[in-house]
Amino acid sequence: MRATVIHGPHDIRIEEAPDPVVRKPTDAVVRVVSACICGSDLWAYRGVASRTAGQRIGHEFLGMVEAVGSEVRDLRPGDFVVAPFVWSDGTCDYCREGLQTSCPQGGFWGEVGSDGGQGEAVRVPFADGTLVKLPKETADEEKLLPSLLALSDVMSTGHHAAVAARVRPGATVAVVGDGAVGLCGVLAAQRLGAGRIIALGRHEQRTAIARSFGATDVVAERGEAAIEAVRELTCGQGAHAVLEAVGTEESMRTAISIARDGGAVGYVGVPHGGSAGVDISQLFDRNVTLAGGVAPARAYIPELLPDVLSGAINPGLVFDRTVDLDGVPDGYRAMDDRTALKIRIAF
Amino acid sequence: MRATVIHGPHDIRIEEAPDPVVRKPTDAVVRVVSACICGSDLWAYRGVASRTAGQRIGHEFLGMVEAVGSEVRDLRPGDFVVAPFVWSDGTCDYCREGLQTSCPQGGFWGEVGSDGGQGEAVRVPFADGTLVKLPKETADEEKLLPSLLALSDVMSTGHHAAVAARVRPGATVAVVGDGAVGLCGVLAAQRLGAGRIIALGRHEQRTAIARSFGATDVVAERGEAAIEAVRELTCGQGAHAVLEAVGTEESMRTAISIARDGGAVGYVGVPHGGSAGVDISQLFDRNVTLAGGVAPARAYIPELLPDVLSGAINPGLVFDRTVDLDGVPDGYRAMDDRTALKIRIAF
Repeated sequence: MRATVIHGPHDIRIEEAPDPVVRKPTDAVVRVVSACICGSDLWAYRGVASRTAGQRIGHEFLGMVEAVGSEVRDLRPGDFVVAPFVWSDGTCDYCREGLQTSCPQGGFWGEVGSDGGQGEAVRVPFADGTLVKLPKETADEEKLLPSLLALSDVMSTGHHAAVAARVRPGATVAVVGDGAVGLCGVLAAQRLGAGRIIALGRHEQRTAIARSFGATDVVAERGEAAIEAVRELTCGQGAHAVLEAVGTEESMRTAISIARDGGAVGYVGVPHGGSAGVDISQLFDRNVTLAGGVAPARAYIPELLPDVLSGAINPGLVFDRTVDLDGVPDGYRAMDDRTALKIRIAF
Repeated sequence: MRATVIHGPHDIRIEEAPDPVVRKPTDAVVRVVSACICGSDLWAYRGVASRTAGQRIGHEFLGMVEAVGSEVRDLRPGDFVVAPFVWSDGTCDYCREGLQTSCPQGGFWGEVGSDGGQGEAVRVPFADGTLVKLPKETADEEKLLPSLLALSDVMSTGHHAAVAARVRPGATVAVVGDGAVGLCGVLAAQRLGAGRIIALGRHEQRTAIARSFGATDVVAERGEAAIEAVRELTCGQGAHAVLEAVGTEESMRTAISIARDGGAVGYVGVPHGGSAGVDISQLFDRNVTLAGGVAPARAYIPELLPDVLSGAINPGLVFDRTVDLDGVPDGYRAMDDRTALKIRIAF
């Protein structure tokens, strides 16, 4: 089969790779129908997160089950499935509690020795614990595929930010970051009944999507000016719930500063270095909670799926370009230089 | 009247001060019956937190209302009251929501221009919003006074840590810090139904109180060894809820490290500097929530009071020495060199 391989910074190639096979009785092999490129893949692409030369990449995909091991009970060849961005055994304490990202047997697609999502097929460990079955007929619904694929990571992660920030019906919400996760955070906040949603972002094409996802206000400023603008919109108080979807020191500082006293920052931007931007004294004086982390997509997919199927939410709108496998290196370039928001790969 | 005054590091004096009077129609004057010295007063005593020479000090007291302004509605002379460690107007958004520590008109006893709690009398701004009435007959119950006084700060703060750490019935709880706040955190966790309470501390006299407050395990180690010990006690997972009651970089690092994935750290130790000990990557990877801050004692006192009156909780046991006003400078010395846990002042 052919798969995406990272050889170093800015060096993404499509190469021949061994066809995945069932190695353990709990494995499945999935033929990928659609995958995508994540903003967090860019950390590897830019060399900020280190990778071994020749490592696979990509952690979001949906597809058809092609083969299953002897101990796989809930899936069979021909099932249409979506994969969360980490695999998990489905049986440990954490999996049973819905925090599958902490499964001791879990792992991340593309880590050394595993297949990545941006390839024609994937060996899936702990298939029962990992994969979520989709209605078979949806495999032919081209218009639905992007939104189903978004459940794999970006929509589940936006939802995690909203849950961590304790978005409640009627709450004033602010979302820092107009990338695909931030936009899905807007959608998640709207879905949870937020009364007002302030999207921070300066790219008009993106803030237009934010508005279509439920943002009531857009703040194009950054840093101090953004903080002032949000305070002005909220009678000086700030937002009950702030979703931080970037992961830089500046974005965290902004997020904490625009949170209302007693409110919460739900952060899902992968943090880079130390305690970037976390001012503990500010959190302390104002009783602002800091919550979030890596999203347990496996727990959220079943919860969000009905709303995708009904059309109540359409997170697939974050994809603004579709490529085939050969177009993936170009896709990375486009996301890196921000000419594309999020790239979908159709096989 | 006579009051405690701080002139500089290690320079606490008892001096003559003007008798407080009602200045604003919402003021009351309270004749102090009992007050105490707080661990956080030691930051000023040691010169870590700066004070203006001649500033009053002390922020925990109970006493008799002596005079009220014309707009005070709920209190009258002769009422027995306890004061939370900040005053608040009782009418703003934050006060109505129970986050009185964020009241824009609020303030801290002893700040420049205000009376401190460690004096014979105190002018209380926004008396209706600030003071909590106690049953009159309790003023004569010598045995109850220490526990009623503890509501002013130390017990309310321990409770805040437990609430912020999301202590639930049956939860495994760890408490970092064996000072008076940490001990009250143990008591609060027990009151909220914790299944297991691990107290971290090395002072036997203090851990004995922790045990009497409900601690099921005591870990005397520090740093890495403490982390290992807690992990061993919890099948390698850590505690669902961790109460951080110290405020140093090491204690915060320990608290985060012993939290179970998906759990929460409730911190109430006044932080000193930057983002001391907060490792955002560890929080992110394990979905550990960081919550807490300055405790809204005004909201908690009415909730905790019935349990003090019934004897269900006895937080006054954290006081291990009582002095009169002249004994206060000695009391600071004793708390500073850790020969006393917490000093009560009887007038």
